[in-house]
Amino acid sequence: MSAPLVSLLSDFGHRDWYVGAMKAVLASLAPRVPVVDLSHGVPPHGVAAAAFVLEHNRAHFPDGTVHLCVVDPGVGGERGAVALRAHGQFFVGPDNGLFGTLAAAPDLLVVELDPLRVTDREPSCTFHGRDLFAPAAARLARGEALENLGPPAAGLQPTPEWWRREGSDLVAEVLWVDRFGNLITGLPEAVLAEAGVAPVVEVGDRSLLGLQSTFSDVPRGEPLAYVGSSGTLEIAVREASASRFLGCEVGDVLRVRPA
Amino acid sequence: MSAPLVSLLSDFGHRDWYVGAMKAVLASLAPRVPVVDLSHGVPPHGVAAAAFVLEHNRAHFPDGTVHLCVVDPGVGGERGAVALRAHGQFFVGPDNGLFGTLAAAPDLLVVELDPLRVTDREPSCTFHGRDLFAPAAARLARGEALENLGPPAAGLQPTPEWWRREGSDLVAEVLWVDRFGNLITGLPEAVLAEAGVAPVVEVGDRSLLGLQSTFSDVPRGEPLAYVGSSGTLEIAVREASASRFLGCEVGDVLRVRPA
Amino acid sequence: MSAPLVSLLSDFGHRDWYVGAMKAVLASLAPRVPVVDLSHGVPPHGVAAAAFVLEHNRAHFPDGTVHLCVVDPGVGGERGAVALRAHGQFFVGPDNGLFGTLAAAPDLLVVELDPLRVTDREPSCTFHGRDLFAPAAARLARGEALENLGPPAAGLQPTPEWWRREGSDLVAEVLWVDRFGNLITGLPEAVLAEAGVAPVVEVGDRSLLGLQSTFSDVPRGEPLAYVGSSGTLEIAVREASASRFLGCEVGDVLRVRPA
Repeated sequence: MSAPLVSLLSDFGHRDWYVGAMKAVLASLAPRVPVVDLSHGVPPHGVAAAAFVLEHNRAHFPDGTVHLCVVDPGVGGERGAVALRAHGQFFVGPDNGLFGTLAAAPDLLVVELDPLRVTDREPSCTFHGRDLFAPAAARLARGEALENLGPPAAGLQPTPEWWRREGSDLVAEVLWVDRFGNLITGLPEAVLAEAGVAPVVEVGDRSLLGLQSTFSDVPRGEPLAYVGSSGTLEIAVREASASRFLGCEVGDVLRVRPA
Repeated sequence: MSAPLVSLLSDFGHRDWYVGAMKAVLASLAPRVPVVDLSHGVPPHGVAAAAFVLEHNRAHFPDGTVHLCVVDPGVGGERGAVALRAHGQFFVGPDNGLFGTLAAAPDLLVVELDPLRVTDREPSCTFHGRDLFAPAAARLARGEALENLGPPAAGLQPTPEWWRREGSDLVAEVLWVDRFGNLITGLPEAVLAEAGVAPVVEVGDRSLLGLQSTFSDVPRGEPLAYVGSSGTLEIAVREASASRFLGCEVGDVLRVRPA
Repeated sequence: MSAPLVSLLSDFGHRDWYVGAMKAVLASLAPRVPVVDLSHGVPPHGVAAAAFVLEHNRAHFPDGTVHLCVVDPGVGGERGAVALRAHGQFFVGPDNGLFGTLAAAPDLLVVELDPLRVTDREPSCTFHGRDLFAPAAARLARGEALENLGPPAAGLQPTPEWWRREGSDLVAEVLWVDRFGNLITGLPEAVLAEAGVAPVVEVGDRSLLGLQSTFSDVPRGEPLAYVGSSGTLEIAVREASASRFLGCEVGDVLRVRPA
């Protein structure tokens, strides 16, 4: 195993102290383990978007990384709390679909977190990120065995689908609008290939013909469809915001028609 | 003393380079000391809110942590600049009420920062965070004695009150609206208990009956009063924004009536 | 050389996972090298503003720091990709004006990044920050020689000017509006001195007479011109937003007339 590392993914944003409180717990229980913020900009309660970010970025992290993931609208209710090993890394958080894409990992091992085994303080009812998940992540980062944190769990809740087929069309929702206004979907390059070399991408009231390689393939201010840096379909406007230009937001639908 | 750690709390936000400049100074003067951002989302010049965040999170940090706190509307003017030890940790920043809650610590020791002892560069007039407080924090993180940084100080400015009594009612301002739109007050659970097991919480034009344990105790879209993860009264709307739902912002007043 | 350190400067903001992905790559290729976020709040595609932040903050970082700078509207197009040594530190990013202020460094050495020498994966067309610049920065942070990353480059693109002379006036654009609403220009104190001890600063529809030392030199709510913590002309309103008060934004022009 590499030097330990904890990554953080949440919908906590950066305004509040919630991320800082989790880091304080990590620093107390696993001193000197480096912590990387993957993103705290997941839309509030956006489980599908968080799963997308996790799935498309986990391979950039070292083996043995502990991913602490807290997008947890059901905190304090009946949703499960899990820790798991998959693809040589660890994942800790609520079992609400966040980890569904990991269910097929050959080395999968899932445990249901037992608060009594994880921490000697009573967890609050509204902040398991600080009181349950961060202590569990700290234990894994210190090299403690996954099995110590609780009994084996039956499985993992599935992640909401990022795209679907409708006849010969491919349909995908906008999962994320990034800072530049790019529209990001979860439709993978390999599936997109089914629509041929020059598909028509319908977005807002526009039809874009074919896929480009990069922004500078079109004039400034013009929209383009392309396979983004996550390996999925994105829509951008060169040096401007596709979201504003096309009037599209998270949840809007793109349709890909074969050429 | 544990491995050294510096925590940062400010109203600098994340857009500018002010936090980065302080971290550059820390990295230069105390290389390899880990730095944790507690929050930089304090409302601009929000001393009472910053003191609340500090008081309710400091215990999550390891012994010996150096808290570098910069909410400093009076920078360059006559307010004091202090470093202090309290509850086995260190605190550095302006003496404007930020540290008032620490005045009763049994191990309290306060020094007035002497720029000539802290740094060999002339501090700018508008950025003591970078030029005075960060160098002082770096010295403490390297293990230097508090007494080296300046002469003993007389005391600490008091923190503005977070709540008050009005007859048998308890009254508290909204100190913070978090990313989810939850309304956070500084009214502690122990005081709240005076109002009995099922108090009435008046907020906006609503009266909420009793306290809930967690969000899922009410239907989606309904408001609830509860003791939040800081141990104080909060108002939320399940899976929505209480701030928007109730039209409440920082500074608005909540009233708790005995049942 | 000091302990290695990587600083990050970008226009990626904090909402997305782009910074996190770069940090994942750094953690994989240069484990345990500390990373400091200088700023990710550069206005999208704001090369002049990013160069300003870099130029005015680099000296706060330790010798040997590797500055990974990604403000890259031309990604995937024909702009160069460089790594360089200047003033005892390293800089990695697109050659689009970001590094123009470093061209006069006595120890300047610039190489054009050769992707085949930097990484064994094919870079994406839209995210060189993750796929090319972060691996190059990691190599430098591990102590690898700059010359290993590619052939010598001819020079550096110039940085857009931050100020200019018009007769005896000095004219500067607002480069940055900070979180407090302060208006920040790139007009340096030494040039400002040409306008005498009490210049008139015209901003919005106001004329401010003379320069102040700090915010508390004027009454609350009043505007002031002063040399800010970057050593350049700024406009503030004490305990309020100069941007709102004066109706000024990035790109607006200030004029300084001799007294």
